[in-house]
Amino acid sequence: MTDTMKALAFLGTGKVGLVERPIPTAGPGDAVIRTTQALICTSDVHTVAGLLPVPEGRLLGHESVGVVHEIGEGVTSVQVGDRVAVNAVTPDGTCDNCQAGHTSQCGGALGGYRFTVQKDGNMAEYFHVNDADYNLAPIPEGLADEVAVYACDMLSTGLIGSENAAIPVGGSVAIFAQGAVGLSATLGARLRGAGLVITVEGLANRAELSRRFGADVVIDPGSGNVAQQIIDMTDGGADSTVEALGNQVTFEAALYATRAGGTLSNVGYHGESGPTVTMPLDAWGLGMAGKKIVTDLCPGGRLRMDRLMRLLVNGKIDPTPMTTHRMGIDDVEEAFDMMAHKRDGIIKPLISF
Amino acid sequence: MTDTMKALAFLGTGKVGLVERPIPTAGPGDAVIRTTQALICTSDVHTVAGLLPVPEGRLLGHESVGVVHEIGEGVTSVQVGDRVAVNAVTPDGTCDNCQAGHTSQCGGALGGYRFTVQKDGNMAEYFHVNDADYNLAPIPEGLADEVAVYACDMLSTGLIGSENAAIPVGGSVAIFAQGAVGLSATLGARLRGAGLVITVEGLANRAELSRRFGADVVIDPGSGNVAQQIIDMTDGGADSTVEALGNQVTFEAALYATRAGGTLSNVGYHGESGPTVTMPLDAWGLGMAGKKIVTDLCPGGRLRMDRLMRLLVNGKIDPTPMTTHRMGIDDVEEAFDMMAHKRDGIIKPLISF
Amino acid sequence: MTDTMKALAFLGTGKVGLVERPIPTAGPGDAVIRTTQALICTSDVHTVAGLLPVPEGRLLGHESVGVVHEIGEGVTSVQVGDRVAVNAVTPDGTCDNCQAGHTSQCGGALGGYRFTVQKDGNMAEYFHVNDADYNLAPIPEGLADEVAVYACDMLSTGLIGSENAAIPVGGSVAIFAQGAVGLSATLGARLRGAGLVITVEGLANRAELSRRFGADVVIDPGSGNVAQQIIDMTDGGADSTVEALGNQVTFEAALYATRAGGTLSNVGYHGESGPTVTMPLDAWGLGMAGKKIVTDLCPGGRLRMDRLMRLLVNGKIDPTPMTTHRMGIDDVEEAFDMMAHKRDGIIKPLISF
Amino acid sequence: MTDTMKALAFLGTGKVGLVERPIPTAGPGDAVIRTTQALICTSDVHTVAGLLPVPEGRLLGHESVGVVHEIGEGVTSVQVGDRVAVNAVTPDGTCDNCQAGHTSQCGGALGGYRFTVQKDGNMAEYFHVNDADYNLAPIPEGLADEVAVYACDMLSTGLIGSENAAIPVGGSVAIFAQGAVGLSATLGARLRGAGLVITVEGLANRAELSRRFGADVVIDPGSGNVAQQIIDMTDGGADSTVEALGNQVTFEAALYATRAGGTLSNVGYHGESGPTVTMPLDAWGLGMAGKKIVTDLCPGGRLRMDRLMRLLVNGKIDPTPMTTHRMGIDDVEEAFDMMAHKRDGIIKPLISF
Repeated sequence: MTDTMKALAFLGTGKVGLVERPIPTAGPGDAVIRTTQALICTSDVHTVAGLLPVPEGRLLGHESVGVVHEIGEGVTSVQVGDRVAVNAVTPDGTCDNCQAGHTSQCGGALGGYRFTVQKDGNMAEYFHVNDADYNLAPIPEGLADEVAVYACDMLSTGLIGSENAAIPVGGSVAIFAQGAVGLSATLGARLRGAGLVITVEGLANRAELSRRFGADVVIDPGSGNVAQQIIDMTDGGADSTVEALGNQVTFEAALYATRAGGTLSNVGYHGESGPTVTMPLDAWGLGMAGKKIVTDLCPGGRLRMDRLMRLLVNGKIDPTPMTTHRMGIDDVEEAFDMMAHKRDGIIKPLISF
Repeated sequence: MTDTMKALAFLGTGKVGLVERPIPTAGPGDAVIRTTQALICTSDVHTVAGLLPVPEGRLLGHESVGVVHEIGEGVTSVQVGDRVAVNAVTPDGTCDNCQAGHTSQCGGALGGYRFTVQKDGNMAEYFHVNDADYNLAPIPEGLADEVAVYACDMLSTGLIGSENAAIPVGGSVAIFAQGAVGLSATLGARLRGAGLVITVEGLANRAELSRRFGADVVIDPGSGNVAQQIIDMTDGGADSTVEALGNQVTFEAALYATRAGGTLSNVGYHGESGPTVTMPLDAWGLGMAGKKIVTDLCPGGRLRMDRLMRLLVNGKIDPTPMTTHRMGIDDVEEAFDMMAHKRDGIIKPLISF
Repeated sequence: MTDTMKALAFLGTGKVGLVERPIPTAGPGDAVIRTTQALICTSDVHTVAGLLPVPEGRLLGHESVGVVHEIGEGVTSVQVGDRVAVNAVTPDGTCDNCQAGHTSQCGGALGGYRFTVQKDGNMAEYFHVNDADYNLAPIPEGLADEVAVYACDMLSTGLIGSENAAIPVGGSVAIFAQGAVGLSATLGARLRGAGLVITVEGLANRAELSRRFGADVVIDPGSGNVAQQIIDMTDGGADSTVEALGNQVTFEAALYATRAGGTLSNVGYHGESGPTVTMPLDAWGLGMAGKKIVTDLCPGGRLRMDRLMRLLVNGKIDPTPMTTHRMGIDDVEEAFDMMAHKRDGIIKPLISF
Repeated sequence: MTDTMKALAFLGTGKVGLVERPIPTAGPGDAVIRTTQALICTSDVHTVAGLLPVPEGRLLGHESVGVVHEIGEGVTSVQVGDRVAVNAVTPDGTCDNCQAGHTSQCGGALGGYRFTVQKDGNMAEYFHVNDADYNLAPIPEGLADEVAVYACDMLSTGLIGSENAAIPVGGSVAIFAQGAVGLSATLGARLRGAGLVITVEGLANRAELSRRFGADVVIDPGSGNVAQQIIDMTDGGADSTVEALGNQVTFEAALYATRAGGTLSNVGYHGESGPTVTMPLDAWGLGMAGKKIVTDLCPGGRLRMDRLMRLLVNGKIDPTPMTTHRMGIDDVEEAFDMMAHKRDGIIKPLISF
């Protein structure tokens, strides 16, 4: 049958598997995309581990690009056959939070994050996109799908980490963890004009990539008091810090390492932190040291995607060294398992359809 | 002898007393002020209770105005005899943090807070001011000293609470606690154009003053889940919250009550919170709900004082209903005791010299 | 017949008249509103005078509120019978400029301004609204339509004038001209915490209203060098200026009167300035004095309206003293003529349907 | 005699010459620097051409670095013998504008610009610096004086051009003119994360350098309607424009080329524009298209210098390809003449002492 497709589904805590599903259809204002390239994201690993409750059978995935397969009534910005990228976050553009500019919080906290959480994800041969005119971004000529796919989440999340960190031109920034989000934040630090980029990472291949992406210094988390090392290198604390892991230890170190008057930007998902995150009062300056703590979820929408893909097509940044593995859809279970266990130096596996 | 003065000193944990001291003198760039009016601040009550370690004998006080008594070499902006106000925070204007615009963090976290913490305070007949050209603000004609004195700390702190909260014009704000700082934040909410001002206060006289200062709704903290009440009134959370008390309960409630994408502005001193403050992950949106947490210490400097006094002399706000008691320097021990025990509906006692 | 309506039309340069028209209908996503209250705007006077080219027969008006008469397919945020306010600017919320937060520039410069310019205006018994979910704002209980109608343009435009002026809390602002937009900017200056509000106006009744709305000083433009008077009152120039008239003389004076490092916010419509506006280089500081020149068109959208109406329903500001005249739809030609000639101290005539 | 020095003086309109002068001395808070490397600036060429009135005999120059020769009473941040860089703008850090963060406007419009305008410049073997603790920035180990000297003006001015332009990450920017300031703005566009950098330059060697510094497209100003070309490349106008020349033609083109809602950042010195600069109303969107016009003078102070030198020492940018010529102090008259006539592809001549 031509109207079914292969897709990766959550099959209960700790279990994923390829399933056969009907190809979705497009309601008014919506679109359906035929996937060409996709990346697997650590958040899905968290979800499968049970950190985020989703029903069994829900499709995984939120980093996919492809070709417009069907458009719903009223969609005017794209045509069937167009190559398009879609952000992991797909806001409606209309709710109060969207009108206030917080599109990732569409309809409520984290509400713009629909794939897998609110509906089927897009690690699938086809996928549905709400509010297509708001969310579909044509991939520019000359930009390969396998590069554009980095705009879906990694670059949008990593870069907003550095954007929110309010790094002064020539200022100092410390970025905690150099997984795919942290590495993207390192690219982002370069794009904001950081003068000194310190990253914190223990895995050798990630540390090497970190330097290649712009880190001036990479601190091994096993090398002693990381916050103090940063404070010493920056004469009192970094102007900005980015917490790109999401646990108590890194958050706390980032808070200590942030200069009075500076900014801590969190893009780590704290699902594994337990029910709370704790701020030592001396790190927080008794609540009066002028340290700002800013958080965000991957910003979505067409304009965001256009801008990220402009950076890619004009060669301003190149995230593709993060593509450590390439596979087909039939290997996606294996790829997922590798991500879950961080085997073989994996950072991002690219799934080609 | 004319060269001694009366002053209020810290005499060991839980103890204060009037002492006799030499009148200070002005080194290069400095000035000495003869005090006319002063206010007692709750932070001194905290200090005396042992929350902030200061040596025995250190003079208390940081909210005083007066007349220039002596100027040091090189001071050009004022002359002996000028009426001047001095902020509780007296930055040098030169260090890295000052040049970055974080003058309250002069030289390091909270470093602009010199009175009592780094040198003698100014609940005294005379007091010394560093960097006089940066810090002395002439009191405008037509503005009484007993009004101007509110600019020293209460207005600067309370208003920055509301300024940092990034209240949208017509937006909603919830302010936790209506002591003198919280009440000043309520005045500040009006000055930033809040459309809905919710305050949280249990004491009847403070609640009444809160309404007079612009609160549309005052919630009694004993009336059940305060955060949920605010969420219900604001269709999902206030655009901005101000935590003006400084403890775990109010901080946590403020975090819950802040809308996704909104801002929590802390001006409460968390010295009593114990070694940490804790953020529930659901309140913090797993570190991704776009909630900003901003903190500050009373911003100092002459320009800040000029602007605050302009608000006062032109009648834009009137903080003087907070002056619940008036006393002389000889009654200052009694006034301090009243503050410590919140007796007799006291909010701010004015000490006239 | 029930399916025609009365409306005010542009009938050629200098001519307006009541006409009979079919009641509009609602396409997908749109709505039709039955008008209850409307205000006449000076921009329509400009349009009729030929400054903005529109086809003969085009309906005038862009400040109307009413009751939902019909909703198109897919509209979910309102129901027939709801009382709603609609901004003069009705963005689609989807275009690049909207996604960038510049909704008044929807689709291109001034593109959010659809009434009269791109389609029929709403000085009519019924009117059509595009993108209803984005643009319709329910009028809160307790807020009369004749008050809510001020949110459509006057408050949104006047307030953004003061918001864009970046008035520091306690800072100084000078507002040029006190017509309805300038007066609203004066209300806005209060909402941003200006410490000193200087307005410039020659008509006695407007000057009186200006003081009532918060002006500390009203300068008569015939009293000599206005810019110099402001410079003298502010020790070198106002922190912020608002140009609310839109001609060379006021713009130039505002530029001189703006302090180095300050902001000039233009909300005046410069249609009558001729083909250019000129900046004297000494006023502009040779292009290096740090003076920012910011402009805007009335910001639209539901959230903006909600916030403005929150200010009204909670009594934070009261623009209704600007309602100098009250009339019915059958008097609208006369009201328009009074506006055109500024007869009888007219500021805003309210048209009740 | 050891207490005289060679220096370059303005000797009347169109005339410069080496003169002998006493070595300056340091008053309280000041310092005297022995120059090691200096650059000649086009603004001095303008000054000598008579555009900026200065007295005959006034020394030229404001881009010099060197070694601390003498410090005045009270200077604590440096010692004799330290290598230091000094910005072209030397604020006092104390005046109202400085406290408001507009240090280049110290004491009034352009008031931070002291060298040559208010006192002798520093194209001299020694020079005097006011407010040394605020203004002297130690040159980091590993950074050559001939590189650090770019921080004095070119980088600070060019970068602020791009910083003020508010380029969105991945957004588009057009930079008008690729002299030393424009080229530095091109480096700045990279540091702010521009996705598309368009520059406008006619000289072949500058166009080539522009591409090397990050321009994606270089438009020849002789190739037709420059603004329209930019509008076409950016689908309606660049998010940001930088006017780095300072005349009517480029300013006007930049205004047209700026997208509605975008920002025009001027760092060109409009001394040659005549008494006014003119804005066509259609370019300015009738004063309502949301186009911001921002200006600035080279920001000074130690922290700014520290940050710029951090970019240099960590290799984030390399401005030294602009050093087209190297000479000694005895050739400075010749170098000045080359700058005045843009001979031999000159961009910046480095004068070594």
